[in-house]
Amino acid sequence: MKQSQLFTKTLKDIQKDEVSQNAILLTKAGFIHKEMAGVYTFLPLGLRVLNKIKNIIREEMNKVGSVELQMTALQDKKLYEATDRWSDEVVDNWFKSKLKNGTEVGLGFTHEEPIANIAAKYVSSYKDLPFSAYQIQTKFRNESRAKAGIMRGREFSMKDLYSFSKNKEEHEKFYDQMKEVYMKVFTRLGIADQTYITLSSGQPFSKYSYEFQTVSEAGEDTIMIDEKKKIAINKEDYSDELVKITGVDPKKLVEKKAIEVGDIYSLGEKYSKAANLKYTDKNGKESLVYMGSYGMSPSRLMGTVVEVNNDKNGIIWPQEIAPFKVHLINLKKDLKDSEQVYYSLQKEGIEVLFDDREISAGVKFADSDLIGIPFRLVVSDKTGEDIELKERNSKKVELISLKSVLKKII
Amino acid sequence: MKQSQLFTKTLKDIQKDEVSQNAILLTKAGFIHKEMAGVYTFLPLGLRVLNKIKNIIREEMNKVGSVELQMTALQDKKLYEATDRWSDEVVDNWFKSKLKNGTEVGLGFTHEEPIANIAAKYVSSYKDLPFSAYQIQTKFRNESRAKAGIMRGREFSMKDLYSFSKNKEEHEKFYDQMKEVYMKVFTRLGIADQTYITLSSGQPFSKYSYEFQTVSEAGEDTIMIDEKKKIAINKEDYSDELVKITGVDPKKLVEKKAIEVGDIYSLGEKYSKAANLKYTDKNGKESLVYMGSYGMSPSRLMGTVVEVNNDKNGIIWPQEIAPFKVHLINLKKDLKDSEQVYYSLQKEGIEVLFDDREISAGVKFADSDLIGIPFRLVVSDKTGEDIELKERNSKKVELISLKSVLKKII
Repeated sequence: MKQSQLFTKTLKDIQKDEVSQNAILLTKAGFIHKEMAGVYTFLPLGLRVLNKIKNIIREEMNKVGSVELQMTALQDKKLYEATDRWSDEVVDNWFKSKLKNGTEVGLGFTHEEPIANIAAKYVSSYKDLPFSAYQIQTKFRNESRAKAGIMRGREFSMKDLYSFSKNKEEHEKFYDQMKEVYMKVFTRLGIADQTYITLSSGQPFSKYSYEFQTVSEAGEDTIMIDEKKKIAINKEDYSDELVKITGVDPKKLVEKKAIEVGDIYSLGEKYSKAANLKYTDKNGKESLVYMGSYGMSPSRLMGTVVEVNNDKNGIIWPQEIAPFKVHLINLKKDLKDSEQVYYSLQKEGIEVLFDDREISAGVKFADSDLIGIPFRLVVSDKTGEDIELKERNSKKVELISLKSVLKKII
Repeated sequence: MKQSQLFTKTLKDIQKDEVSQNAILLTKAGFIHKEMAGVYTFLPLGLRVLNKIKNIIREEMNKVGSVELQMTALQDKKLYEATDRWSDEVVDNWFKSKLKNGTEVGLGFTHEEPIANIAAKYVSSYKDLPFSAYQIQTKFRNESRAKAGIMRGREFSMKDLYSFSKNKEEHEKFYDQMKEVYMKVFTRLGIADQTYITLSSGQPFSKYSYEFQTVSEAGEDTIMIDEKKKIAINKEDYSDELVKITGVDPKKLVEKKAIEVGDIYSLGEKYSKAANLKYTDKNGKESLVYMGSYGMSPSRLMGTVVEVNNDKNGIIWPQEIAPFKVHLINLKKDLKDSEQVYYSLQKEGIEVLFDDREISAGVKFADSDLIGIPFRLVVSDKTGEDIELKERNSKKVELISLKSVLKKII
């Protein structure tokens, strides 16, 4: 894409009320625009990153045989009354509205109730189980404070997967599998090294549940890490029992701030009971379906990646989710030579942002560092037949042929 | 995909309050689930179709150089007060809610105000214009009646594109181009033959605007068609002036019911004025940006396609947006032969729904007609080495080799 086609620009001055690093960098670099606290528009560059994160998640969910659907934002009060989650005293972050006829509706902050209700329509026999389904959809949470940029939004994207099993054993098999699936996603997003499976207190039907916590000063949680075992305990829920379960040495735990980038829950039969979600086994016996839920927010992950990958000049995107792989910068008067490189790269299927603007080299370099695309190529009068290659996360500048460039970055 | 993997099934009995053909068929066939009137979950089959429609639209918008972004559902009251569109007396289909601190927020029914506000941040010079940007996002409209299935939702998907031009002439060039782009989308969706460019009354800054109307008894509009000129006038806005502009013969107009599948508007300077969206020309003179907006709803289009393509047995999907290209039905006791066909088709990149369920042939055939996938393949004891091929929109049944099948459908 030619940069002249992009209507956004980098910004020097941004709203003073932004305090989080991810929001400041993403706003300056032209990835997001703040509509109100915790509510962000994803500008063209930002949407490209968000979609790449969503696709990585989608691929990993599909690999375990989960099927994608898309539920709605508007929620039926009745479904939540049945599980005692409608009242604002029980769930304090509802956004609510009204239909013309006065009927109250909510904006979905999660979707256990509607998915259990849908499943009840289709599940009747043990042959229908187990299965899992997920969506990547917009959630609404009426947070009283929203100061963490795109890491804690009032409106944000969420992948929520729900599993349906015949019993606890079958559920636990899938639950353990999802632990690995989540770590695979974090590996592809380039944050696995600093992300810990973290035990926190469970629900009534399980002794503990798993969170995934990425170490960062921007985090709202504190976790106690056993570096050797690569496991942690959420400080809030620290107990002798969790120490026993994890087998960590309490004396060796290191306290660090961390961002919760995912959580997976055993739900037991709470929601299937409310939705009358039952199945009949081989002998004709009826039982409630055992459910699990598995959350992960693409927009929060995007914010997390920015928090852990940046320097004083801007963002440093990991290759798999960068808005483009190559930032091609033209410094010649004539665009011809750069255009040739541009088309050669595109022919190889490489995503290129081509800075064809008529502005100073200094501004172009500063913009490029701020935007944070992995490979920077410069075509200038000084480069002759060759091209200057620099990686965003390195200081080394090479002068090499187009052919070598292609070899290096394909 | 194996049908046994799909948690949904076809349904015989559906909610009695569904009156629209599209909702009845899509619900029975397992494409959608009703959360409340005008609010539908897209089940796995439905989401596949919806995403295909979105991608066709996306491709055509990208082709004219438009860039994609994603604005938010939650809307800032202040932006709409500036254009006098906040009050419920002016806009009667707002969903409104409140932040914890009592601040009122709206759920976006359209996005002229926020996009003008975003553009004002980036546009300053004539060099920044013209450009256009679009999103494919969820809109909320508090309809008092919602009985048209997914054709008129309270929550629905919308592609809304906004154009930004230096002046009226530049705007009109793009506006006319979009007329062609819209017809291209309808061609790809298989509804171009029955879709008419329709003139309706304009806004203060234009004598008329264009709608796109697809002839169907399910339509809420009535249009007066000149079949020869392939143009129509919306009956509501019929006037001597529109007859003159279109050059139609009033005596030859045919009245038909139709579904509005798109509309494109010249917005003039109304929203740029409110957002202080200005540019400076070569001589340093400041002017307001001239805007246009271009709407088209993927979910309404999906409903429209169903309304115009069905028979007594079910839906008949056009190839480009069918959930799968091939419905492979196994009638043998052993899955082996069918599986071989399944993998051969998948190897060729063909999307296949493989009915591997252990149920009667009659149920499988009925389900297949209801779901409406273009090509049906049957592997049974009767077919020997060959495969039975039948197209959904034809009665002819052929017994041919796998090789011939591949030739025919790739």
